[in-house]
Amino acid sequence: MKDKQIPYKIYIEENEMPHSWYNLRADMKNKPAPLLDPVTHKVMTAEDLSGVFCDELIRQELDDATAYYDIPEEIRSFYKMYRPSPLVRAYCLEERLGTPAKIYYKFEGNNTSGSHKLNSAIAQAYYAKQQGLKGVTTETGAGQWGTALSMACSYFGLDCKVYMVKCSYELKPHRREVMRTYGASVTPSPSTETEAGRRILAEHPGTGGSLGCAISEAVEKATSTEGYRYVLGSVLNQVMLHQSIIGLETKIALDKYDIKPDVIIGCAGGGSNLGGLIAPFMGEKIKGEADYRIIAVEPESCPSFTRGKYAYDYCDTGMICPLSKMYTLGSNFMPAATHAGGLRYHGMSSTLSQLYDDGLMEAVTVKQTDVFAAAEEFARVEGILPAPESSHAIKVALDIAKECRETGEEKTIVFGLTGTGYFDMMSYEKFHNGVMQDYRPSDEEIATALERLPHIE
Amino acid sequence: MKDKQIPYKIYIEENEMPHSWYNLRADMKNKPAPLLDPVTHKVMTAEDLSGVFCDELIRQELDDATAYYDIPEEIRSFYKMYRPSPLVRAYCLEERLGTPAKIYYKFEGNNTSGSHKLNSAIAQAYYAKQQGLKGVTTETGAGQWGTALSMACSYFGLDCKVYMVKCSYELKPHRREVMRTYGASVTPSPSTETEAGRRILAEHPGTGGSLGCAISEAVEKATSTEGYRYVLGSVLNQVMLHQSIIGLETKIALDKYDIKPDVIIGCAGGGSNLGGLIAPFMGEKIKGEADYRIIAVEPESCPSFTRGKYAYDYCDTGMICPLSKMYTLGSNFMPAATHAGGLRYHGMSSTLSQLYDDGLMEAVTVKQTDVFAAAEEFARVEGILPAPESSHAIKVALDIAKECRETGEEKTIVFGLTGTGYFDMMSYEKFHNGVMQDYRPSDEEIATALERLPHIE
Repeated sequence: MKDKQIPYKIYIEENEMPHSWYNLRADMKNKPAPLLDPVTHKVMTAEDLSGVFCDELIRQELDDATAYYDIPEEIRSFYKMYRPSPLVRAYCLEERLGTPAKIYYKFEGNNTSGSHKLNSAIAQAYYAKQQGLKGVTTETGAGQWGTALSMACSYFGLDCKVYMVKCSYELKPHRREVMRTYGASVTPSPSTETEAGRRILAEHPGTGGSLGCAISEAVEKATSTEGYRYVLGSVLNQVMLHQSIIGLETKIALDKYDIKPDVIIGCAGGGSNLGGLIAPFMGEKIKGEADYRIIAVEPESCPSFTRGKYAYDYCDTGMICPLSKMYTLGSNFMPAATHAGGLRYHGMSSTLSQLYDDGLMEAVTVKQTDVFAAAEEFARVEGILPAPESSHAIKVALDIAKECRETGEEKTIVFGLTGTGYFDMMSYEKFHNGVMQDYRPSDEEIATALERLPHIE
Repeated sequence: MKDKQIPYKIYIEENEMPHSWYNLRADMKNKPAPLLDPVTHKVMTAEDLSGVFCDELIRQELDDATAYYDIPEEIRSFYKMYRPSPLVRAYCLEERLGTPAKIYYKFEGNNTSGSHKLNSAIAQAYYAKQQGLKGVTTETGAGQWGTALSMACSYFGLDCKVYMVKCSYELKPHRREVMRTYGASVTPSPSTETEAGRRILAEHPGTGGSLGCAISEAVEKATSTEGYRYVLGSVLNQVMLHQSIIGLETKIALDKYDIKPDVIIGCAGGGSNLGGLIAPFMGEKIKGEADYRIIAVEPESCPSFTRGKYAYDYCDTGMICPLSKMYTLGSNFMPAATHAGGLRYHGMSSTLSQLYDDGLMEAVTVKQTDVFAAAEEFARVEGILPAPESSHAIKVALDIAKECRETGEEKTIVFGLTGTGYFDMMSYEKFHNGVMQDYRPSDEEIATALERLPHIE
């Protein structure tokens, strides 16, 4: 076995954990475009946003000048319960593959929410509590974000109201019960609790709901209830900021052993994990201090980077949220029902979109069945049962490691393992039974969805 | 916050991990009684057991003289993928409780199998592989052991045949699919694959199966198939030996910070976790080097220590396995169907039984609804969603910490958090909905089950 002086798991010490988040936008030469009002198309100000989001989070959202934000002590205390997360050297996988490549993964699944989402959930709950709010609302689809937010709110004694897409609510009772364990109120969406919900129920009585509808309900509830605000687990700049903890810890761990990655790989849905993982590395790349190959991996069925358009678009199906300039497939694009994992969002973080447009990172798509095959190959030697989302990154890491086997190159690969797949076993079952399907949207399908892009002067 | 120099999570370094398992029996003054043949009542020899178990595991099973067993390098490599497990200082819980007690827990749930069972599964798979076997068979109820064994067999390229109690197979499809992900063959028991299964199906066509029946099927399959042996995840001495890694790591972590526990608490079903956690501490206690209060926590519905008899009994319902001297409720005792967690075994490890009989440890029972309330209280501040089994220990740890709040005592409490509850959300749901029931078996029920004890001369 190679390099045995590097441990299987690099745990940085508690006192080595980052004291600040890193705001990559401060170092970007081309800044991400600002949010626009969905009706007037004017640049959104802090005041415009204050009925929806918490004040401090708005400040973070709009600030592209401050490079570092101190992490408040209360948040650091919570982080210490499940962080630092391990940077794992995949010795067993390397040996099984017979590759000279050195593979590392940053594992964010070792907490009850099962993913990296908790990193931002606890920050958002903290600032809501600091502002004296009573509670927050959000939507959840697969449930990772809702679970993370429930845990965070429970910790700070904040009410948590989750609108869960109705079909998920019914198909994923386990997820729902984890949220209830943490004291959250979980409502299947569409519900009769909101105007938006009642309208949709009247039009489509038997609907299983959608993320777009759940967002509308959550935003309406937050803006119409005293002491409540709305929070979101991906896409936003504030989320990228909080998630930078992933990349910062990774960098500290690598530096301890003088390891320089050649390739950094992350799955990309809205961008919360990828943006966090790459933040400090991309900062060095922009400043010319180091060079890294950075790869975003997206599902073939929801290819925003690789087949979408870089344009201002609605962030939600209901067209009530601000407009964001991003790679988008159109705000009513829906990945096929056969698509199992998350990574279903039609758009992408505006920060990552700008970086991609600037040629600072690459993007590739992978097929669903290949993703599950890679997940299983990984699980059997590395032990961890990966989430389908994370497995997109695994697939590409395995491909590159296998290429190295052919070429003899000793590349150092780092990828983000965002979470565990315990609540995705029904998708694994489809894969085991050979009934999982791949789906590639047609050019027409994407073109049609893009017809709804707003016309920005 | 108190003692901030002690980190939230004490991770020992990889090079501090134990190189040997500790065989507590070697230091016991009164040795556990030997296994007897279920028919002849003669002491079982290695030869008698060789058709059922792997040779090296038989040696470990029968050896009460060797204090330390080297952990083979291949097993250490696997351990390094998910160990050392963290010893967590429950600062957040202490603060919430307002207790002067210092609470630590050894968390064994940070691996895909979700529990400590993997510590022995990997050892048993390794010795089976070393012996040149083709595969192993086992039974599983709730599925933790089956999952752990599947992972271990997958790692060493060994066939794994799991007989899963039919009602669990149907009610817990997630668990089943995790095992399939690791390449195990999972058969609902009773099945038509074995004599034992066919006999039971003929007698009870619609049965949901039982652990006793699944054991009979697994043993029959192992003894009738070339190159196969049977393996078991609890009760046995070999399992206690492998699980000593839990206690050894705990001790190293505590010693690093000069922490002396006053109380050590573990849940007790067959004893695999408790025996492992307490091993080095009990060794010191026996040798008079230190004193600890050691508490076994069992469910009110399956109280082997507190209401059972210390006697030779059958280890299985089918009465085909060796007889073991242990605290037992009778080999056909079944905890009520309303009992949610594991810890359903009618007997107890013979080692722990002897220690309890010698007055070296205490045992208490707790009610199911109290256990789930404690689980939820713990989850909401410490983040981790605990398994129902582990939550038995949490309940008693919370009780003692609350007593300390009254008395002002600064007791140091260490408990074993054996695993996570992701696959137990249906039980949590019952608890949330207020329909979970407690059950205390009547004296008559226990007396009736004990009528089937074998008569040993």
